[in-house]
Amino acid sequence: MDPNRPIGVGLLGLGVVGSGVALALQQRRNALSKAVGAPVQLVRALVRDPHKPRRPNLSHSVLTTDPTQVLEVPGIDIVVELIGGEQPAGEYVRRALVQGKHVVTANKDLISQQGSELLDLADEKRLGLRFEGAVGGGIPIIGSLTEDLLGNDISSIHAIINGTTNFILSSMADEGMDAKEALSRAQQLGYAEADPAKDVSGLDAAYKLSILASLAFHTKVDPGQVFRQGIDGLSARDFRYARELGYAIKLLAIAKAQRNGVEVRVHPALIPEGHILAKVGGVFNAVEVAGEPVGRAFFHGLGAGADPTTSAVLGDLVHVGRMLATGGRPLRRVPDDADFYVKAMSDVETRYYFRLNVPDRAGVLSQITRVLGDLDISIASIIQKDADAAAGTAEIVITTHPAREAAVQRSLALLDGLDVVKVVNNMIRLEELPV
Amino acid sequence: MDPNRPIGVGLLGLGVVGSGVALALQQRRNALSKAVGAPVQLVRALVRDPHKPRRPNLSHSVLTTDPTQVLEVPGIDIVVELIGGEQPAGEYVRRALVQGKHVVTANKDLISQQGSELLDLADEKRLGLRFEGAVGGGIPIIGSLTEDLLGNDISSIHAIINGTTNFILSSMADEGMDAKEALSRAQQLGYAEADPAKDVSGLDAAYKLSILASLAFHTKVDPGQVFRQGIDGLSARDFRYARELGYAIKLLAIAKAQRNGVEVRVHPALIPEGHILAKVGGVFNAVEVAGEPVGRAFFHGLGAGADPTTSAVLGDLVHVGRMLATGGRPLRRVPDDADFYVKAMSDVETRYYFRLNVPDRAGVLSQITRVLGDLDISIASIIQKDADAAAGTAEIVITTHPAREAAVQRSLALLDGLDVVKVVNNMIRLEELPV
Repeated sequence: MDPNRPIGVGLLGLGVVGSGVALALQQRRNALSKAVGAPVQLVRALVRDPHKPRRPNLSHSVLTTDPTQVLEVPGIDIVVELIGGEQPAGEYVRRALVQGKHVVTANKDLISQQGSELLDLADEKRLGLRFEGAVGGGIPIIGSLTEDLLGNDISSIHAIINGTTNFILSSMADEGMDAKEALSRAQQLGYAEADPAKDVSGLDAAYKLSILASLAFHTKVDPGQVFRQGIDGLSARDFRYARELGYAIKLLAIAKAQRNGVEVRVHPALIPEGHILAKVGGVFNAVEVAGEPVGRAFFHGLGAGADPTTSAVLGDLVHVGRMLATGGRPLRRVPDDADFYVKAMSDVETRYYFRLNVPDRAGVLSQITRVLGDLDISIASIIQKDADAAAGTAEIVITTHPAREAAVQRSLALLDGLDVVKVVNNMIRLEELPV
Repeated sequence: MDPNRPIGVGLLGLGVVGSGVALALQQRRNALSKAVGAPVQLVRALVRDPHKPRRPNLSHSVLTTDPTQVLEVPGIDIVVELIGGEQPAGEYVRRALVQGKHVVTANKDLISQQGSELLDLADEKRLGLRFEGAVGGGIPIIGSLTEDLLGNDISSIHAIINGTTNFILSSMADEGMDAKEALSRAQQLGYAEADPAKDVSGLDAAYKLSILASLAFHTKVDPGQVFRQGIDGLSARDFRYARELGYAIKLLAIAKAQRNGVEVRVHPALIPEGHILAKVGGVFNAVEVAGEPVGRAFFHGLGAGADPTTSAVLGDLVHVGRMLATGGRPLRRVPDDADFYVKAMSDVETRYYFRLNVPDRAGVLSQITRVLGDLDISIASIIQKDADAAAGTAEIVITTHPAREAAVQRSLALLDGLDVVKVVNNMIRLEELPV
């Protein structure tokens, strides 16, 4: 680039994060330019409606409705993609790279599904493609996995990476709300969208987990390979029983590298109340990375929203800007060709919690324990809970030692067929984290 | 460098961290070389006694007692300094940079006292000088402050960055131990040195805080400018009263940027029990960074010890190695010339906790509250605690609203002189963190 002109930034999208970036480039221009080591300037921003009133107020020469005016003009060095979704964002990112522009994006859909190919393209062109904002908002987890922790052999990631569901589960745990009530409060407060399906089903977390697992294990994990179960089966009663047993319930995103493959799964999980992940409340996100030699490193912060994501995007922007000001080139990407395959969920081994509704009479336990014993599911604890005298029923809560998911699924079908089991109210996986 | 030879590493010091690095370069050589993008090789290691049995077992051509054999030989690209202390480590780092070698160090004494000059020298020579291991062990806090969070305007840091004292305070809080007992247990477990003065006095934390504050605020904070009070004045009773008031007590390292200067201080502090820093137990470290637009980002992990520090050093080594393999140059340093001065402790405003021993009779409170009121120290709560009927005394615990340190110090002298105050048992600062 011409050393006599400022580093030019082109924005794709002027939503809350785009506006935050534009505002920072206006109001904190001196500080950002100093961090970069050269002046930084917003050259152009792609918008749908250039006449909409905005903050910051941008001149009409900056606003454009034509993507080519961002992707293919010479004065722009860094394209910041904040449109979201796979298309047309993916096409724009590709075009920007082909035109020799560095790219910063916060697009988890795009990176989880096309990250490997896009990073290869960027690498081939010797361009930066950074995406700190795609996972964990303001938490610098992408930078930590791809830089600071790169000397480690990462063995597992345990993460709370969806703020909406963590807010809902925190309301259920702390205030005894049921799921519906907690969701509608989250919606009132703007923490859940009108259509919360992507969050509540675990899909959003699965996208993010596939990115983290790919980086941590130097392999390609497709979001479709992530086992996924949402939070809709949880009841206030599960939270109460879990607490009595010393556990919290969180929607956990888990990635583990084992000799025989990688486990990647998003589901509600009981975790020990003394573990720091159990303290993550409200809309916060957190990621715990375990590896050798680091042991365990834990990150916590606001996982979404305009400000934290703006922080991540600005961090990436400053990084690329410093590189340009230094006359450098981005570091080569670490190849994602490690020889791992994603384990089928049926082969996963973990601990389990069952909640069963049974007749309140003798002989019930022996039949239930026989079913479990026959399938090699070893019981860790079994407790009879609230009896309903009128109905003549009681609830039984069972926790198991590590067992195979396939056996547990089979046991659920068999238990459901027993005369002495009225209904299997719930099965929740239990993650035995060191406290 | 010659592209046909591996990236050469020279180690200064083969203590626990040096051995960890050497072991990783032996046992995980393929993984590390893949992360770097080029083969990485340990060329030479400076030791005091080349005949001492070691793990890993290194050939005698690698071991040397002559620093010049590491600092001034052509096959070494990266010098890893793990001797510790200011001298001769500082001289070695300088010589390595002058010889055109990149440097990785975990030396907090050196970086806190000479970091600015050494970073300038490295910058002038276009060499990398990285020091992730100097603060927070395995927690990637240096990388986060200097890279990922660089787009932020950082307003404060609250950190627990001394594992020894956190272990001692956790034992006092959780098991009601007194300070002596807790220290001797820490020594038995290897968490405290035979001479624990540097840890217990807060000196170690002050060194680390000066590094964090310098990076966060782009200024030079000398460790001697950090206000410092150790943990030896704390008693089991303070922990009990604090808990009753809803607070934990931690040795906190605090850095705040304000319009009229920077506050940097290390002292025991009451912090709200609901805040995530209050959950940091045992030898763990944690750092909370507040800034705009990130909000609050929180980092937690093992703060010291061979393995976490090895992780940090390897991360830096891989970073420099990748840069060399890419044929790149390190990013320019962000200048530390921001216009801040370090505030005198007497000008700091914070909240306070007092514990006073008083005669158990009427009229006591009015005299005490008059002293405080006259100094504009506004009381938030005042509670009478355990009375000693035999001695005719009681304990009074007072918490204040924000007050000036100078006024509080003056009030302590005045209270001590009152007839109605037998003794001022303790004064502890109280940090009002948002929960």
